Parts: sequence; C-alpha cells; structure tokens
Amino acid sequence: MHFGDDLMARTREIGHPLCAGIDPHLDRVPELFRQGSMAPADPSTPLAVEALALAFLDRLVGKVAAVKPQIAFFEQMGSAGMAALERVMAAARERELLIVLDAKRGDIGSTAEGYARAYLEPGAAAEADALTLNPYMGLDTLAPFAERAAAYGRGLFVLAKTSNPGSGDLQDRVLEKEGPVYEVLAGSLVPMADELQGPATGWSSLGIVAGATYPEQAERLRALLPNALFLVPGYGAQGASAADAVRSFVPGPGGLEGGLVNSSRGLLFPAAGQEAADAGGWEQAVDEAVARAADELQAAVAR
Amino acid sequence: MHFGDDLMARTREIGHPLCAGIDPHLDRVPELFRQGSMAPADPSTPLAVEALALAFLDRLVGKVAAVKPQIAFFEQMGSAGMAALERVMAAARERELLIVLDAKRGDIGSTAEGYARAYLEPGAAAEADALTLNPYMGLDTLAPFAERAAAYGRGLFVLAKTSNPGSGDLQDRVLEKEGPVYEVLAGSLVPMADELQGPATGWSSLGIVAGATYPEQAERLRALLPNALFLVPGYGAQGASAADAVRSFVPGPGGLEGGLVNSSRGLLFPAAGQEAADAGGWEQAVDEAVARAADELQAAVAR
Repeated sequence: MHFGDDLMARTREIGHPLCAGIDPHLDRVPELFRQGSMAPADPSTPLAVEALALAFLDRLVGKVAAVKPQIAFFEQMGSAGMAALERVMAAARERELLIVLDAKRGDIGSTAEGYARAYLEPGAAAEADALTLNPYMGLDTLAPFAERAAAYGRGLFVLAKTSNPGSGDLQDRVLEKEGPVYEVLAGSLVPMADELQGPATGWSSLGIVAGATYPEQAERLRALLPNALFLVPGYGAQGASAADAVRSFVPGPGGLEGGLVNSSRGLLFPAAGQEAADAGGWEQAVDEAVARAADELQAAVAR
Repeated sequence: MHFGDDLMARTREIGHPLCAGIDPHLDRVPELFRQGSMAPADPSTPLAVEALALAFLDRLVGKVAAVKPQIAFFEQMGSAGMAALERVMAAARERELLIVLDAKRGDIGSTAEGYARAYLEPGAAAEADALTLNPYMGLDTLAPFAERAAAYGRGLFVLAKTSNPGSGDLQDRVLEKEGPVYEVLAGSLVPMADELQGPATGWSSLGIVAGATYPEQAERLRALLPNALFLVPGYGAQGASAADAVRSFVPGPGGLEGGLVNSSRGLLFPAAGQEAADAGGWEQAVDEAVARAADELQAAVAR
C-alpha cells in the first residue's frame, strides 16, 4: 500500500482528478433528508447528515477516486456527529473510495501522536487514507504523521497556499532573501516528499494544499515539489475554473496529472437537488453535477 | 460574561496563574484507573480516561482558575473518546473551573463556523470558555471565532510562538522589513484584541499562545499586545522555569499578571501518583504536585 501510487493509479483509470468534498452545511441539507430541527445539538441531526452523506457516496462509486469529508461539519454535532462521520467513512471504504479526511490538524509531538492515532492507524474508528495538516507549529509536528504515512501507506496534505482571500495574511509574506512563506514552507518539505515517493509512479504520499484560486502560485509550488500530490480546493463554488485548478499538473501517461481537484458544495448541493420532490430527482441532480465537473476536468487534463 | 475579565478576576483571587492541562496519555494512566487493554479502540479505554480526568478535576476545585483539556488525547479514542471529553467538560463546568479547550483549529469561513459552533456556542455538547486557534490560513479564518467571543463572552488563544523546538521553522522566519513571523502575526491581532477588551480589567478575550521555553520572544510579544492574555505552555515537564513562564507578565493589583501558565504531565502524572497503591495515595501525589506548581508560580508573580 502506498497512497501516492494508489491515488494516481485510480485517477488514471477514472480519467480525471475530481475529488468529492463532503461538507454537510446543516442549513443546506435538502428537504428530502431533513429530520427534526436540524440544530447541531438535536439528536436527529447527525442521522439526517449521515443519510445525506451515504446517499451521496452511492452516487460516487466508480465516478471519483476519492472523497474528502470535512470533519468540522461533523464535529459541530459533538460526539454524535463524530460517530456519524465514522459510519460515513466506513461506508466510503466499503465502496472502495479513497478517503482524504480534511481536519487540518497540527500540534507538538505527543499531541500529534494522538491525532495520527485517531486518523491514520489501521483499525481506528475514523480511519482515513490521507489527512490534511497545518504546518504553523513546525516540521517536527509533522513527524508523527509522516511515520504513519511510511508504515501504513497513508497520504498527507500539508497546507501551503490555501484558497481563501485571507491566505495572503501570512502565507504570502515575503521572507528576507528566501521569498514568500508558502514557497519556503514547500521547499522545506522536499526531503519528506522524497522519502515518501512511490515505487510505481514516482508520486509521493506527501502532498500539499494549493488553492485553485491562486494558479500562478500553484505553478511555482510545482517547480519546488515536482513529486508531491496537490490537493486543490477552490474549484467550482469558490470560483476557480477547471483550467486554473490543474495549472500545477504535469504530463502523465493519460494526460495531465498531479493530484486531486476538490469540489464540495457544487456536487453535494446542486440547485436542482435542493428542490427535488423525490429521491430519484435528487439522485439525478447529483449525477449531473458530478458528470459536469468530471467532464470539465477531463477536458482540462486532456493533452 | 467576558472571558478576559472573568479569568483575571479568578486568577487574582486564587493568587497564581496556574492552568491544569488534561493530557491523558494512554500509556501513563496510573494502574489505579486502567481498564482493559487501554488500546484507543477498546471501549473501556475512554471510561478509564474519564475516571482519571474526573478524579483530577476533584483535586483542582478552588486551587486553579482554569483547566486545559487537550482534545487530541480524546479524539484518538474516536467518537467514544469525544463523548468522554463532553462529560469531562460538563464536570469541569459544574465545578466552576474555566475550560480552555486546546484544539488548535483553523479553517476557512464556512468550516470555521462549524468549529465555532462545536466549541463556543451555549449548549454545545463540548462547550468551552476559550479555544486555541491556528492562524496559518489568515485573519479571515479567525472571524467566526471572534464573533462568538463577542456574543457569548468566550476567549481565544491564537498560536504565536509555540513551545516546541520546531517552532522556529516558520514562526521565527524573518520577513523583509517587518521582522519575525510571530511578531508580525501578533501585530496583526492588535485590532481584534482591542475590540475584545474587558470593561472591568482592561484585559482582552483575545489572547495568544507564547511558549515559556522562549521567554525573550514572550517579552517582545507583550510589547506588541499589551492587553492580550498569554496562554503559556512549556512550564514544568517541558523544561521552562516559573520565572521564564511569567516573563511576559506585567504589574497588576496583586502581583504580576497577564494570562495562564499551563502544566499538564507534571500535575496529572506525578511520579508518586503512578506508584500509588490506593486512591488516597494518588490524590495526595496530585495535591502535592498542584501545590508545588502553585507555590512556584505564586512566588514568581509576587512583586
């Protein structure tokens, strides 16, 4: 098992890098799935979210290589929400979808061990294939995650240049002689990326997050990290085009490749799905949204 | 309700800034409390951790102003661990201990809303008085937390200069003209600190994390943020002295003041407590460790 090789084999087979984000905003859950008040503390809310997520997973089998649950939308419902997330992740695993858990964790050694145990060890209740990480506290805080990546074939995506407007506040600041923070950070990840390089494809299990909303920065990041997988948020609802989303991609056997392009709201909450009168109508709306995004990205990676 | 005012009133009354960290390392749980295999996935493990944490809380009533549960040690046990954390936090609230939840969350707007709802809203299953935050993604990612701080009197501690050796990798990097990253970050927090300033004491509900292991940096941070509470890790087991831990403190009505100094392992896992044959022996070991740290800090803040 090697996350980089496995992900790349699957995206090559599927023909596009679309990753389906699972961000269940409580106020957007379609009427079809709603239960009770939908307040975070209402015990029926996690059940409604779980039903939505499971129905969504059923639409994705064979259509995307990976899903990306955003843990905050489950955490907001407390431990009952976390139990729902565990069931959704188990269902994704049964459906042979790779799971990139978007948790953006980061802490000092002994605490990072706890997070690594929570999400990257075999048999963990919320066992993921890959995890997003925040590097602010330093490279030593990434080590416990890198150990699990090496031991169990997991993937890591370290925040470099995020898709939000405020990403400039710290990430774009320019260091004396060295350049912008996000580039310096990326440069410091090179040894870890090389250590986790895949034997089959050359792609590493150490990746970064590089927002589609900043395509020129993504190109510079690719130059610094030629073998890192890029997890690219910002495509779709956040405004970036398919072409911008794959700006960091490089030629591969079947077209441009280099990571995953995530879309969340656009797939989980298509406008037509909100108004659907029955399950069939909702399924059709989601199928169309997924097919449209997959087609757009397939065209963008075609050489 | 205002976190800054409330915390300062309590630490003034108690006479020292000691905060008791709740970091239940599974392999350190004393024999007295152990149940089953103590593996993270064993259903009896969260019960053992909960029993330890509740017994610890009983030793702290009237002795410290605040406790700081580290969420990773509960998350590693999955949703059952999160349920145990919720019960421990409810018990801390009943015992009138302020709760600083150490979760170091940080994400873009809609996702940050989820985290803010999870930990800072009244009635949340894991309702905290204050939360630690990671600023890497930018100031816009702090806004949903600042809104709850203003609305519900919560406190926020933003990572500035952390206590670990790797904190230099990014935080100490020097920006062109502007100085080190951690100082630039602290400077950018000034407007938020001013907005959340307490009417009674002048202390803000917006604080920072500034490790005791870097006392000179903490002094510079105090100059930049005169009204911010500092949450100071690194005292005790991590090696910093009481004098170093309060280097950022300033004269107040009863001595030096300016935030909370955390000790985790030193209080929860005192050597004598590990070997205790009965509950009385363990209680005595914890009481002595808490009294020793409180006395040291009381001496350090005496003018």
